[in-house]
Amino acid sequence: MMIESVGIIGVGMIGGSLAHALRAQQVCQKIIGIDADTDALAWALNANLIEQGWQQVADCPEVPQVVIICVPVASMRTVFAACQDWFRQCTAITDVGSTKQSVIADLQAACSPLPTNFVPAHPIAGREQSGVQAAVPDLFTGKKVLVTPTAETSPESLMQITELWQQIGAEVEYMNADRHDQILAATSHLPHALAFALVACLAEQTETPEIFRYAAGGFSDFTRIASSDPALWRDICIANQPALTAAIERFEETLQKLRAGLQTQDADALQSMFQNAKNARDKFTQS
Amino acid sequence: MMIESVGIIGVGMIGGSLAHALRAQQVCQKIIGIDADTDALAWALNANLIEQGWQQVADCPEVPQVVIICVPVASMRTVFAACQDWFRQCTAITDVGSTKQSVIADLQAACSPLPTNFVPAHPIAGREQSGVQAAVPDLFTGKKVLVTPTAETSPESLMQITELWQQIGAEVEYMNADRHDQILAATSHLPHALAFALVACLAEQTETPEIFRYAAGGFSDFTRIASSDPALWRDICIANQPALTAAIERFEETLQKLRAGLQTQDADALQSMFQNAKNARDKFTQS
Repeated sequence: MMIESVGIIGVGMIGGSLAHALRAQQVCQKIIGIDADTDALAWALNANLIEQGWQQVADCPEVPQVVIICVPVASMRTVFAACQDWFRQCTAITDVGSTKQSVIADLQAACSPLPTNFVPAHPIAGREQSGVQAAVPDLFTGKKVLVTPTAETSPESLMQITELWQQIGAEVEYMNADRHDQILAATSHLPHALAFALVACLAEQTETPEIFRYAAGGFSDFTRIASSDPALWRDICIANQPALTAAIERFEETLQKLRAGLQTQDADALQSMFQNAKNARDKFTQS
Repeated sequence: MMIESVGIIGVGMIGGSLAHALRAQQVCQKIIGIDADTDALAWALNANLIEQGWQQVADCPEVPQVVIICVPVASMRTVFAACQDWFRQCTAITDVGSTKQSVIADLQAACSPLPTNFVPAHPIAGREQSGVQAAVPDLFTGKKVLVTPTAETSPESLMQITELWQQIGAEVEYMNADRHDQILAATSHLPHALAFALVACLAEQTETPEIFRYAAGGFSDFTRIASSDPALWRDICIANQPALTAAIERFEETLQKLRAGLQTQDADALQSMFQNAKNARDKFTQS
């Protein structure tokens, strides 16, 4: 059954891409955008991504049936505080935050006990570009969405959000928030931290512009994620601090082993590490 | 003036791509391939990349006018020893090794004083795939070739190799070998080491196959270079050990700063590092 109205809080690249996809798959009759940035709202209205645009939740004259919070993780707490009425009235509220324990903790701080209509979720999809102009209709097609229900989440709300993602071509998996944060620390937050650290490290060296002139395609691919939004990633890293710190420490140990192997010219140790990496990556890309 | 004959020692991805390009631009009348692997020679003969194939330098009945050594850096010393006659008779001999000080030291060990016809060079171009079947005609088009002449290199040989690369669409720059190795440690060897270390680190964790299932496009780009040939990169890392060790140590300092910023939730420090990285990378990709 078609959802009557979907409210998207945060009309940026992710929120805009969701609106595109909901529209294309006719998931709902009406999309209401909420964003402090009037330019973003005007752009989304003009692109027919939303029917209505409001700067604040309090301005919106109606309660959307389903709400998707698409703001950076650092803004979740403020948004949750503004959504108190909606947590009592919507059939389901979900989010797209890159960390899940921090989102649930922020909600706990705003609404205790946790509302039964809240479904924490995280689509594993993104682009380096940000802003609603960077929205694309197929961002979530074939992508995984990790849903981490709380003990309070109602089966009905969970089902509604699951179906919403499935209707726009995503694949939903359930896991607990702790496990989500461990996995994402390893596969997303750590690589981003390393890419930012590498480019920052090279940029600090005096002759940098020179250095980058000689970089090849491999360097460009390797550092692509260092062109992501710095404030967004700063907040994700801080929100997932314990898991990311542990992941960095494990990486530091591996890197120390590599450096030790190099210094003692231990060809076997290097070969073994590099071969393990290649095997794992080749297997990952073939699957 | 067209070169009479070019000898390519090492008919793999790089040697084969060179043969493709020399053929396409009619740089020489004849290409002689030398490779211990008879399958590679047969493939190259069949693909019309070479006119003749020999398993060893000693088997080759004629002295090529120009010789390009396309073997991994760890094999340079053996090849140099086998090329003693050619160092006396060719008009120019060059290589494509990823490290330049080690190549020059290997040559010094085989021929002292250094031959005047040797022109150390390194095209900044590559692919993750290896073997002559992975050769492509446009690998060097628009790419930089760093040429690091020794004090003994003759102007005539230098000019001949410079023109050869220019004829196949590459852009030649001269620098000294020490500077080359510093730059490549930063922009190529360090990123490869980090990519191998990251995937090896994740692969060590017990639940790895699980972890990789949740990796997104950013992770795939970031780790692409970890699918490169492990033995080749082991040897490059060892050949450039001093510069790479120094680069790893600088990176470790930056990563420690990042981890410290994370642990103290120092948003300003993280923001500043990430923003510097984004600025540097955006500038690099725009240039």
